[in-house]
Amino acid sequence: MIEQLQRLPGVGPKTAQRLAMYIIKRSDAEVEALAQALLDAKKQVGLCKVCFHLSAEPICEICRNPQRDNETLCVVSDSRDVVAIEKTREYKGKYHVLGGVISPMDGIGPEQLTIEPLVRRVSQNQAKEVIIAISPSVEGETTTLYVGQLLKPFTKVTRIAFGLPMGGDLEYADEITLARALEGRRELD
Amino acid sequence: MIEQLQRLPGVGPKTAQRLAMYIIKRSDAEVEALAQALLDAKKQVGLCKVCFHLSAEPICEICRNPQRDNETLCVVSDSRDVVAIEKTREYKGKYHVLGGVISPMDGIGPEQLTIEPLVRRVSQNQAKEVIIAISPSVEGETTTLYVGQLLKPFTKVTRIAFGLPMGGDLEYADEITLARALEGRRELD
Repeated sequence: MIEQLQRLPGVGPKTAQRLAMYIIKRSDAEVEALAQALLDAKKQVGLCKVCFHLSAEPICEICRNPQRDNETLCVVSDSRDVVAIEKTREYKGKYHVLGGVISPMDGIGPEQLTIEPLVRRVSQNQAKEVIIAISPSVEGETTTLYVGQLLKPFTKVTRIAFGLPMGGDLEYADEITLARALEGRRELD
Repeated sequence: MIEQLQRLPGVGPKTAQRLAMYIIKRSDAEVEALAQALLDAKKQVGLCKVCFHLSAEPICEICRNPQRDNETLCVVSDSRDVVAIEKTREYKGKYHVLGGVISPMDGIGPEQLTIEPLVRRVSQNQAKEVIIAISPSVEGETTTLYVGQLLKPFTKVTRIAFGLPMGGDLEYADEITLARALEGRRELD
């Protein structure tokens, strides 16, 4: 059991041992309930057929929500990013989860991601804007530019802003962030 | 001496004591050289008459440099921000240091800052763009909007971008930063 638990993210040998000791001391019923919850979740949660976000239903709650704006699509690399953006309560459009970023070093090319379904979706739909919201790593930049080129024939393609984080102090910002903040300056309303 | 040293930023009682012990063990000449360096720096370094950046000369090196672009002016709150932006090596224009931000709570109004000389400078000069680069705190926002309103009759006024810092992960960005990054999105080239 300790070996298995150690494979979980953020669980080292010591934590695995502590979890194992805890589980052993529980009643049979409690351990069975935990084990069953893992199996059920694994069986029930799949990917939304439309946007590839995690979902217990064939089509996820966001895609099914008629109050969400159908004309804006936000492209993210991971389901966790959907959760992060939903927390802002600022975005009312729909999503498309790529399932990763293009990373030749790790053997991940465009065909390993949901880029083809995305292009099909945008070319068939009436999306007025696609917002690419991918973290600014080397792989993220590559993916943003690649996806952007494919979608531009069909719609307006934007990307999220890079610059100073809120509460961030100019003085403590790294040079690349500051350079991007200057480069991305906007006219004051 | 310990009492005096403790007034320096980041120096607590223990560090002050350690510094004091060190200084006492130096030779007379060494301590005199240190004391003189403090006095000389304090006497020689003043504010540039044009941009209010720290300078040993009446007009600072950046203002005197004929290779810097006279048509772009970057407004910052503090001399440290000039140093931070210079490190990016991306900015070739000149600066204006406000000497703080508007903060009624601390009794700092516009008249305590170098806003009047800034307006005079912009109204008389041929600056094509003024970039306001002030950290995004409540006081920073107030100052940006106040200065922006005063300068808009004379020139184009922009502000630096706020959004995801470089290397930052979407998933770990706070909600306000993410909301600003979405709001400030730009069309992909």
